[in-house]
Amino acid sequence: MKDFEYTAIRLHNNTLFVLDQRQLPQKEVWLKIHHPNDMCECILNLSVRGAPLIAVAAACTLSLFAKEKTLSLGEIAKSLKATRPTAVNLTKAIDDLMSGGQSNPDPEELERKAEHLIQQEINMCESIAQQGVSLIEKGSSILTHCNTGKLATPGIGTAMGMIYKAHSEGKNIHVYVTETRPLLQGARLTAWELKKAGIPYTLICDSMAGALMPSGKVQQVLVGADRIARNGDLANKIGTYSLAVQARYHQVPFHSAAPMSTVDLSCEKGSDIPIEQRPISEIEGVHQHFSSLSWAPKNDQKFNPAFDVTPASLVSSFILDTGIYKSEEIKSL
Amino acid sequence: MKDFEYTAIRLHNNTLFVLDQRQLPQKEVWLKIHHPNDMCECILNLSVRGAPLIAVAAACTLSLFAKEKTLSLGEIAKSLKATRPTAVNLTKAIDDLMSGGQSNPDPEELERKAEHLIQQEINMCESIAQQGVSLIEKGSSILTHCNTGKLATPGIGTAMGMIYKAHSEGKNIHVYVTETRPLLQGARLTAWELKKAGIPYTLICDSMAGALMPSGKVQQVLVGADRIARNGDLANKIGTYSLAVQARYHQVPFHSAAPMSTVDLSCEKGSDIPIEQRPISEIEGVHQHFSSLSWAPKNDQKFNPAFDVTPASLVSSFILDTGIYKSEEIKSL
Repeated sequence: MKDFEYTAIRLHNNTLFVLDQRQLPQKEVWLKIHHPNDMCECILNLSVRGAPLIAVAAACTLSLFAKEKTLSLGEIAKSLKATRPTAVNLTKAIDDLMSGGQSNPDPEELERKAEHLIQQEINMCESIAQQGVSLIEKGSSILTHCNTGKLATPGIGTAMGMIYKAHSEGKNIHVYVTETRPLLQGARLTAWELKKAGIPYTLICDSMAGALMPSGKVQQVLVGADRIARNGDLANKIGTYSLAVQARYHQVPFHSAAPMSTVDLSCEKGSDIPIEQRPISEIEGVHQHFSSLSWAPKNDQKFNPAFDVTPASLVSSFILDTGIYKSEEIKSL
Repeated sequence: MKDFEYTAIRLHNNTLFVLDQRQLPQKEVWLKIHHPNDMCECILNLSVRGAPLIAVAAACTLSLFAKEKTLSLGEIAKSLKATRPTAVNLTKAIDDLMSGGQSNPDPEELERKAEHLIQQEINMCESIAQQGVSLIEKGSSILTHCNTGKLATPGIGTAMGMIYKAHSEGKNIHVYVTETRPLLQGARLTAWELKKAGIPYTLICDSMAGALMPSGKVQQVLVGADRIARNGDLANKIGTYSLAVQARYHQVPFHSAAPMSTVDLSCEKGSDIPIEQRPISEIEGVHQHFSSLSWAPKNDQKFNPAFDVTPASLVSSFILDTGIYKSEEIKSL
């Protein structure tokens, strides 16, 4: 493969490196992938995250290690898929690369497909940004949640892509970014991206979003989506629904930007989307690479949903790479 | 003074101790007050917090050290008042104790007044609980925010007092407690109280409150109040307004429980209540007694409001020690 370098993944002389997102923003450490198992580990431990980035990372891993005769490509594909069983992009990318047959893969064909996927993901981000930037007024403030940017894709991101685009067009925007408890993707990753890009921003606790709205400090809420059901209900990072309710109450537009691949027409409605429950230790404190700290008393509860569902009726527009849609148009895509 | 022992303050052989709330829930450490300056320090560093508890702590300090001829009672009063210039209760309590004149105070009179204040605060909590418990249905779930319990008063608390009362009456309730970023009073203090009392609870991140409501998991939101304006607008811990908006959207009752002394008839409306802005370091991580940790990149923003304002129109009922009121009745109190 030809060398490449994106914000969170790079290839140099056929060696793959990923930015260790667990260590951001304190340290920018690149991890070298010596073996396919290293990439599995990186996805599992959240060094590599964001559905489009994971798909690209897996495809590059398959392509690079296809030449090593001591490894079974079928086994690699299986291990990579198993890291995120619910990530549709990941499964799709691996299946696409493996479609030529597992027993005798053509390394050049794999390489071509991996490179094509990267380009596709980069173009997808650009298309979303181009479609959506018209929704961002000059001088306006945008509230965003979690991380949907250069750390989640090989391109400029989805919701964040629109923000980068508006900034580069000189629209003089301001971003309010929620810290996104419990895993703090907003405070750690989106804030890091915004600061690096020189985009003015204010970091807020998740509970502060409402207090900004009555005084007109926010002109739109702009988030990503993990899955969009046929009826336009969407699953996204926990806290998204609260933001959508507050946006509606204050008559602030609420938009979701995502790749077309996020639309799951086989999923009828939001309540059909399975919601992952994560360990309660995440709520009891922070248990991440940079620190492991509990501040709450131990409790035997089971409630820590990673996502919530926002009903179609609260979504002003979906910005996909193919266009801007209303909820009721999703089913015809 | 006669010995006493409450959850967060105790007197033993004329020596005053306060529970160091900064170290909860990890450690229960009692701090000995050797000198009035120790109490000032404890209030300033948040070892002692909660408006009713601060007032009682200050009154006890004045009374105990009045006998020491080397100290100026006027100076002690001044230093104690200066710890929380906006706390109406504190100023009121000190002024009441000092009303006999600073030059020649009668230690017995001070003692009597301090003991009276403690009893008054305990009774206030009991009255709120008795007034409000009728609003809590058997088997219902209550969402609360921040800490309004035995750690904030010498009694059972305000909003939490109602919860204790409902639990002791066998109402079989469940409490959802928000962690209350940035200072985590919910995760650290309210969770500690609920666990100690054996009241079933679920700790949630602030962003999760909305996701509970559509499925009917919450029957009421119950919070305290730091100040209630003449028109019924109320200032309370940041995040309260978001909860009120979500409660309204889901047609869940939103109640505020507070002592009558919280009503400030000289304050016309919510926008007249000054909102304290706190250091941004609190949002960039946790900087507390148990840990000092930044996880966000440094930013030069100034936005970290300690409180927000909930308009009267979103408040279903005010539960005061004198009764249950609608917003429009506040001005006639």
